Amino acid sequence: MEVYEAIQTMLAVRSYADKPIPPDAVQRIVEAGWLTGSSMNMQPWHFVVVEERATLQQLGALARSGPYIAEAALAIAVVIERTTYAVSDASRAIQSMMLTAWAEGIGSNWVGFHGLDAAKPVLGVPETLDLFAIIPFGYPARPVGQGKKKRKSLAAVAHRERFGQPFILQESD
Amino acid sequence: MEVYEAIQTMLAVRSYADKPIPPDAVQRIVEAGWLTGSSMNMQPWHFVVVEERATLQQLGALARSGPYIAEAALAIAVVIERTTYAVSDASRAIQSMMLTAWAEGIGSNWVGFHGLDAAKPVLGVPETLDLFAIIPFGYPARPVGQGKKKRKSLAAVAHRERFGQPFILQESD
Repeated sequence: MEVYEAIQTMLAVRSYADKPIPPDAVQRIVEAGWLTGSSMNMQPWHFVVVEERATLQQLGALARSGPYIAEAALAIAVVIERTTYAVSDASRAIQSMMLTAWAEGIGSNWVGFHGLDAAKPVLGVPETLDLFAIIPFGYPARPVGQGKKKRKSLAAVAHRERFGQPFILQESD
Repeated sequence: MEVYEAIQTMLAVRSYADKPIPPDAVQRIVEAGWLTGSSMNMQPWHFVVVEERATLQQLGALARSGPYIAEAALAIAVVIERTTYAVSDASRAIQSMMLTAWAEGIGSNWVGFHGLDAAKPVLGVPETLDLFAIIPFGYPARPVGQGKKKRKSLAAVAHRERFGQPFILQESD
């Protein structure tokens, strides 16, 4: 799938089919995170790839906003260093992984930021690092609609040359 | 360009050809930021699209780490609210914009995080918001190499089931 199409169409998926993700797709998703650019190329991240059902269920029970992790085919826990740009860098890596999955028909959603400390021991995350997010992945349980995304108008967030001057050339829909 | 290919190949571009970016490509880049998902769909961002040479030169003079903004065909200043998830959300939006540009042959680089306060008046950014990053875009001045990215080994950052257990199936290069 083309980059722009993936960004245009990607929606959060929180309900997953009981269907495994092929190992080569898992590999590409992990590599997408690994290869993402970071501030001063610090790469302040780790990716813990979870596919064991018992662990997914534990994570789903512990992550306050993500009980659906329990049903996912895969979850990637993103662990970060306590450095200035780590949140920003990891967020870019997560976007890369979610878009790569989406381009292969695999849905995901971002589970964070609170309540993840309790999940650190489950994953063996060292005390000196933070569990920043858990991203569950899976083929959508139901066809994903092509519905319009709920967004502010483009005019409300895009400006031309100076803040407050309208950017609009045309709205795309 | 396919999503995974874009992520695999994207490199920072800091030297730009003297060639304008077509308006429809600018539109797609801005829309890619606008359409990106955010925590609780808060969309805590603004995008100021700059193409006037005088303004690009002013931004290049003020942004400590980004003098090359002066030569870019386009820069998008990303302005954020002072809310908990704004840095993370804006980082996702920037990744979306940079990938969308890259897929069309347009290079970019992230300029932040310091020294941007001085650029706020140039862009008319309200006091209550932060200028988080400026992203210059342009066609690369020289062909972009297909060189290997400088990254830690995949083994150093990817783990299977628990932190410290090797993820490796195979390295892709």
